[in-house]
Amino acid sequence: MKKLNRGVAVVGTGMSQFGSFPEKTTRDLFVEAFQDMRASVDRGLDPNDIEAIYVGNYSSDLFEGQGHTAPIMADWVGLAPRPATRVEDACASGGVALRQGILAVASGLYDVVLVGGIEKMSNLPIAGVTDALATAGDVSFEIPAGFTFPGFYAAIATAYMHRYGASPNALLRVGIKNHDNGKLNPKAQFRARIADLMAGRIAKAQQKGLPVPEWQTEMDFLHDDGANPFIAWPLRLFDCSPVTDGAAAVLLVSEEIARRFSDAPLYVIGTGQASDTSALHDRPELTALRAAQLAGQQAYAMAGVTPDDIKIAEVHDCFTIAEIVATEDLGFFAPGTGHEAAEEGLTTRHGPKPINTSGGLKSKGHPVGASGAAQAVEVWKQMRGQAGERQVDRDVDLAMTHNVGGTGQTCVVHIYERR
Amino acid sequence: MKKLNRGVAVVGTGMSQFGSFPEKTTRDLFVEAFQDMRASVDRGLDPNDIEAIYVGNYSSDLFEGQGHTAPIMADWVGLAPRPATRVEDACASGGVALRQGILAVASGLYDVVLVGGIEKMSNLPIAGVTDALATAGDVSFEIPAGFTFPGFYAAIATAYMHRYGASPNALLRVGIKNHDNGKLNPKAQFRARIADLMAGRIAKAQQKGLPVPEWQTEMDFLHDDGANPFIAWPLRLFDCSPVTDGAAAVLLVSEEIARRFSDAPLYVIGTGQASDTSALHDRPELTALRAAQLAGQQAYAMAGVTPDDIKIAEVHDCFTIAEIVATEDLGFFAPGTGHEAAEEGLTTRHGPKPINTSGGLKSKGHPVGASGAAQAVEVWKQMRGQAGERQVDRDVDLAMTHNVGGTGQTCVVHIYERR
Repeated sequence: MKKLNRGVAVVGTGMSQFGSFPEKTTRDLFVEAFQDMRASVDRGLDPNDIEAIYVGNYSSDLFEGQGHTAPIMADWVGLAPRPATRVEDACASGGVALRQGILAVASGLYDVVLVGGIEKMSNLPIAGVTDALATAGDVSFEIPAGFTFPGFYAAIATAYMHRYGASPNALLRVGIKNHDNGKLNPKAQFRARIADLMAGRIAKAQQKGLPVPEWQTEMDFLHDDGANPFIAWPLRLFDCSPVTDGAAAVLLVSEEIARRFSDAPLYVIGTGQASDTSALHDRPELTALRAAQLAGQQAYAMAGVTPDDIKIAEVHDCFTIAEIVATEDLGFFAPGTGHEAAEEGLTTRHGPKPINTSGGLKSKGHPVGASGAAQAVEVWKQMRGQAGERQVDRDVDLAMTHNVGGTGQTCVVHIYERR
Repeated sequence: MKKLNRGVAVVGTGMSQFGSFPEKTTRDLFVEAFQDMRASVDRGLDPNDIEAIYVGNYSSDLFEGQGHTAPIMADWVGLAPRPATRVEDACASGGVALRQGILAVASGLYDVVLVGGIEKMSNLPIAGVTDALATAGDVSFEIPAGFTFPGFYAAIATAYMHRYGASPNALLRVGIKNHDNGKLNPKAQFRARIADLMAGRIAKAQQKGLPVPEWQTEMDFLHDDGANPFIAWPLRLFDCSPVTDGAAAVLLVSEEIARRFSDAPLYVIGTGQASDTSALHDRPELTALRAAQLAGQQAYAMAGVTPDDIKIAEVHDCFTIAEIVATEDLGFFAPGTGHEAAEEGLTTRHGPKPINTSGGLKSKGHPVGASGAAQAVEVWKQMRGQAGERQVDRDVDLAMTHNVGGTGQTCVVHIYERR
């Protein structure tokens, strides 16, 4: 088993408000995340101590017409002439940037590294967002065949339901849970439970004297094709993460100096990354992501821990099916049982294995290149007891983040320990 | 001075043919570079030994409509599920990918890392190439003001000529030299001296019975507005690097195992990277690139060598003025004297400080994300005495590569030693 040449710690994290902000560019969002991160450093951060910056970003090229974003982000937070490097692995860009930051500290070249994740996806001057995201698939083979990302994950969901007899309710339960959590996250794009949305629609109909929907439960609401239309069968609107503008920032330092910055640093004790075939049609199965399985195994082996040891995890729920598959790929539940775990509530905030306490990509929002870095923000808050109303009811000494690019062409996993 | 936690060596390099290939995609070009690299490994390479891949690429998003290119490149050379990471810093993407590969090996996590650089720029389905390249400038401020990259470097050339009294002939001399070298590089896009091009035009006019141009020297030809039109004053056609399709590959291993792969490995003894303000208008001067100066200083300090020790250098001559400025930024010539050095022939293949023996970006070609990695190919050949007709006439035990992104928002420098 390979090991890092020295330990790395997280001593600060921050994120911008997630949402749709016509008035904000990537630069604005990143400055917001940087300031939030700076405020989180217990013993204060002199920005001059930062030696390098890594920026995860999927495609400011396509979204904003701006390439070469890393030095711009460095400049905008006053860090020029520090080396600034953009890292791209589609929706895993933020997590992979985090990994490069970790390797850079471990290399001995830097003691203090800033990792950012950024994406501006709404109010685009150039590409349509679904078309732009489709470039993360295989453009030579899959996209000309008519695939989009909802289509890819619909294929995965269909294969999963066929193989394991899963009900669509399992998918919908993931959405309900993540909105329950997101309601309690002040930075989330959607801060409403599904029940709240349902009650709001009923109240609105009553006010306007329109026919009042007869929904009794959240499941009634989510099975209503009008309230929750199909996007790509079996995935409905509330199975899909939204289009989001947002940024996140993580401050990494070498283990030896962590206490100089933080009263309660998080130590990165495991990291794993793997790739997979560029097209789905080259894979032996659709019901698991090999890259996620391998990245998880690498991280567990490095950390010397097992899935049972992980107290909470932020996983990549770009679609609800993705969360269910992730909980199996990471070994939390046996293959084919993740859907039962979701239906039984095992992954709720107070269940035995809380998943996506932040609200996940589904409710917190999914600015694609930022999501992997933003996952570290939730882990930071939960592990330090700073998650407010959504704080889980147990001590979180070990946590995991799991970030996927495309349909699993990339996956990166990290394990954090509070000592 | 920071040091890497362990030494890193180059044990193989390769590149595709550079040129304009309507029939080739990035995937084809990268496979070609990979095979060329594999053939260069003295003691053979089992691809299964490769543990990770870093890919420098500016914008397959804009050029080919394909994002998430790193795992595709890994897949296409049979390396899935190895971790695959794209690195982007505009035209410095290849050099910065090389640096990430070096840091990754130094981190202890990997012993064998493949670094690629790729760009497909001709026959584009989507963006115009000059517009796509302009996204490497500051799109919020500079591009709406009318700047393109020829415009940016024309501003630098104008400022330089004004400040130092340089003649346009100094610029043209750089082009003449780089075409002299490129003629001898079988992988170069343009394998013709300026004198050859001139003779060809004269012969063609004679054949067709047209008026025969009265050029006596290459300078006559290059000062002819018809043969060498202005692109952005004072830069003419032959001051600008071309639009190129190409790829390069570099194999890095930890120092301890270098001899297992190579009879004559190159050791990376210095690396430096720096950034600069996103817009030219925020810089104190236009006649030097601060990021290049700093990256060079870092690399020299790490290597413990001086500019005089460097036997040859591949520098980023995206425009002829860029080469002149680079030779000053790197300390080869004092500020304001690089133009004289160029005019006096000090940087020719047989001069005291050979620069761009490969033909440089000007003649070898400039597939932007590949160029930084391709520079290592030339250094590899010259240091091992494998550069054929263009081999310099002295022992090259120390060499340098210098790769710039945008207008110097990024610069990355490496120093290699043959022991």
